[in-house]
Amino acid sequence: AAQQQSSKRGSLLSGVICINILILGCAMVCSSVFSPDAVSPVNVQILLSVLLLLTTAWMVYYMAYVARLDKAVLYKDGHAGPVWLRGGLVLFGVCSLIMDVFKIANYVGYMHCDSAVKIVFPAVQALFILVQVNHLPNGAVCLPLSCRCGLMLCLASNLIVWMTAVTEESQHQTVIPKSDHGNEGECNCSHTACSIFKEAYYYLYPFNIEYSLFASAMAYVMWKNVGRLVDQHAHHKHRFRLKGILVGPVVGVAMLVAGLATFVIYEVDMAMDDKEKKELALKIHYLMNTVAVSLMSVAALIGYAIYWLDKRDHVSEKNPTRSLDIGLLLGSSLGQFLICYFNMVAIVASSATDVLNALNLACSLLTIIQIILQNVFVIEGLHREPFNEDHEGHVFANPHALHSNQETHQPSTMRRSTSVVIITTGMHVPVTLGPCWKRRLLKEISIFLLLCNVILWIMPAFGARPQFDNELGFRFYDYSTWSAVVNIGLPFGIFYRMHSVASLFEVFLIT
Amino acid sequence: AAQQQSSKRGSLLSGVICINILILGCAMVCSSVFSPDAVSPVNVQILLSVLLLLTTAWMVYYMAYVARLDKAVLYKDGHAGPVWLRGGLVLFGVCSLIMDVFKIANYVGYMHCDSAVKIVFPAVQALFILVQVNHLPNGAVCLPLSCRCGLMLCLASNLIVWMTAVTEESQHQTVIPKSDHGNEGECNCSHTACSIFKEAYYYLYPFNIEYSLFASAMAYVMWKNVGRLVDQHAHHKHRFRLKGILVGPVVGVAMLVAGLATFVIYEVDMAMDDKEKKELALKIHYLMNTVAVSLMSVAALIGYAIYWLDKRDHVSEKNPTRSLDIGLLLGSSLGQFLICYFNMVAIVASSATDVLNALNLACSLLTIIQIILQNVFVIEGLHREPFNEDHEGHVFANPHALHSNQETHQPSTMRRSTSVVIITTGMHVPVTLGPCWKRRLLKEISIFLLLCNVILWIMPAFGARPQFDNELGFRFYDYSTWSAVVNIGLPFGIFYRMHSVASLFEVFLIT
Repeated sequence: AAQQQSSKRGSLLSGVICINILILGCAMVCSSVFSPDAVSPVNVQILLSVLLLLTTAWMVYYMAYVARLDKAVLYKDGHAGPVWLRGGLVLFGVCSLIMDVFKIANYVGYMHCDSAVKIVFPAVQALFILVQVNHLPNGAVCLPLSCRCGLMLCLASNLIVWMTAVTEESQHQTVIPKSDHGNEGECNCSHTACSIFKEAYYYLYPFNIEYSLFASAMAYVMWKNVGRLVDQHAHHKHRFRLKGILVGPVVGVAMLVAGLATFVIYEVDMAMDDKEKKELALKIHYLMNTVAVSLMSVAALIGYAIYWLDKRDHVSEKNPTRSLDIGLLLGSSLGQFLICYFNMVAIVASSATDVLNALNLACSLLTIIQIILQNVFVIEGLHREPFNEDHEGHVFANPHALHSNQETHQPSTMRRSTSVVIITTGMHVPVTLGPCWKRRLLKEISIFLLLCNVILWIMPAFGARPQFDNELGFRFYDYSTWSAVVNIGLPFGIFYRMHSVASLFEVFLIT
Repeated sequence: AAQQQSSKRGSLLSGVICINILILGCAMVCSSVFSPDAVSPVNVQILLSVLLLLTTAWMVYYMAYVARLDKAVLYKDGHAGPVWLRGGLVLFGVCSLIMDVFKIANYVGYMHCDSAVKIVFPAVQALFILVQVNHLPNGAVCLPLSCRCGLMLCLASNLIVWMTAVTEESQHQTVIPKSDHGNEGECNCSHTACSIFKEAYYYLYPFNIEYSLFASAMAYVMWKNVGRLVDQHAHHKHRFRLKGILVGPVVGVAMLVAGLATFVIYEVDMAMDDKEKKELALKIHYLMNTVAVSLMSVAALIGYAIYWLDKRDHVSEKNPTRSLDIGLLLGSSLGQFLICYFNMVAIVASSATDVLNALNLACSLLTIIQIILQNVFVIEGLHREPFNEDHEGHVFANPHALHSNQETHQPSTMRRSTSVVIITTGMHVPVTLGPCWKRRLLKEISIFLLLCNVILWIMPAFGARPQFDNELGFRFYDYSTWSAVVNIGLPFGIFYRMHSVASLFEVFLIT
């Protein structure tokens, strides 16, 4: 009880710290937008540098000192985040590092007339990213209180970096269409490569946004796991086998290839200045997406129907890791919802009736439906008992086990499960055949959904931005509003797709 | 397990409905701001009317039909929200009703040239408020699935009404300073009382915002409680007695009277056009607030120190009602944080050094500290075992009981409690006197904090808006940004103060 009490105190204290830093950061970012004279971006960067240095210091302290304590081993966090989260962190971290290098190279050119903070900040950020990528995935070694506070500091820093990046990116998007002539003012770059660096690092911004989001998610996961003793019973090892599963992978790979092809076409056409080509590329892109999400919706619906029929036991024990996973899945799907609804309202309200926007509308609507169905499918799948190979002989015993478990509940449930028993004892053949057939179909569906999510991840992650290329959003909403919506929503969307891939892989394994 | 499963499905389904309605509403409100030609406020009002009618229909259906089913009694929600929430709902509901009547009266004058929806919407809203005020506090009678969905529909509707009201209020605030001459366009009011009605209903807007927030909170509380069987063991009845408690109430009442006096002065001076008087009124207001929050901070700190010393048992059992209460308390305190941090950044960045803004800065900073300390105090207080009168004779037995309870824990804790035993067996007098003395002081502190929260609630709830009267915020941020921040933050702040009063009263009772 005393330990529980101190753990509660720790969460409260760290939560208070995090909230205060976050709101302060939010206020600073807002004022840098509305009163750039009073709060310049340089001020915000100073605040950020201090925060990042603090967090870095905490991480280094932990790695160097606390990790050596014997006691700390007890708290070693085995669940420091699933593989895909670590992988994403490294991938986007590397891109952010490159961005920082370009930024430094660019601002070195302005050093004679601009603030030195503009060089210091990317340098600090690069250091921070290096330390963080090494620290977070190794599994934090944690003494509850200071660990919680450190992780919350880390979370808050990452979220403020994220806010700043989103704001900068939105402002950048706002400026370009208005003034294409580079009026940088009186300060000129002293070396010739400036414009190249600048171009390059703006392309890398989305990766930095994504990186901050991943690091925040990871810090949050670790914070949730602090003080939770690692469950010692080994996980069931499930083998990854594709034996007997054919349709799902084949259709999935076909979608993947088709998606890659349209993605290449899209990127090539967008790079040209031909307006008709651009429109055609957009149409192809929307068509491809619409087809993909329609097929996925149907697949997820069939999968859910099978779960509905299937009498496999539900997992009854609480599993914090799973709850957290599902929470992240549901939370990150909000980003896509946001973009889709804003898109739909814009199309319907401006009553655009051309083919392009009809496709756009269909694509948005179906994406929403697809995400809902997929979430339901994944959640249902993760809540089933893993299918153990050695239990296959005992299929006949299962309905009775279910029956005796439920006897304590309401009579209506009992009556239904009784009827199931009657049916199964009546007809032997469908039952032995049943689970295998259902199981195979579920495996087909999850592998198909997995592959489709991969292509839906690749397209936005590597630069397809139909929301910006189609000018409707900009025309309908404000420039900065629309780019803020997309810049907030899209990183969550990318995160969602990666998370889905991981979850669907797990569903595949336990089916 | 099956019931738990179906309850999970219900929350998921209702959550999906709520999120979708909310994001759609958010997109509509945003487009009505940025593309008023394509999505006029009338469109938004049509959407809202449909939503409100749906919710009203659900509530009437439940009241008329489902409440009669015998089975439903099982699910009768005894915790349908604490008294202060119901009271707030009724109070703000009445004000919102008056606002709707004024709105209808005003738009009747424009009927010959404006959309009829502008009359229909307030009428629908009035009906909705009437039904809701009758329905929600009575304790929903609930069949899990449809009840969850209905409550989420209710929550979503209230939140969209809230968003719309905040947006309208912010736009209204933005327009006034720019164009004081009423260029209503070509449409003129057909009766003379129009301007009075208009003036009147704009004054009532804050109450409507507050009402929507209360109704949302109540719907959320009920949603959380759906399917939870009411715990049958009677609550400890604690008598409210002020015997022996003097300093807290006296200082508290003094603060209350002083607060009311400054509030009256503030309101009177603000109504005048004299600029110096206005500044003086602002100074008095800030000074009063600074003094109040300083005293409260000190009191909460002392209270927390006493809890730290006090060895009274912590409550170990989980209590969902309490967790929800604490969650709402922490969540609603964010509103005040938001305003304070934005205020502080504005003052520091614009380097305003006059007395007025120095007071403003001190007030913001101390308010943040006060809220944090008070939250900690309330949470600590709610987690203690109620002090039962009939146990008072057994004080000597307590340390031993504590001792044997903790023996299973770490040695360091045990050693400390052993030393307590030694001390208590050594000196008899301080122990019998000890708890009484601490208890009395805690009661003094909670009653003082309670009274101070009442005055801090009264001032913003009845119209003091120093954030708008002091022009710094408007000058520093955008007009609409600052009014959005205040209009979002302040209702949460008012909610927080009311909630604190209720929580402190509970702390007082169980101490």
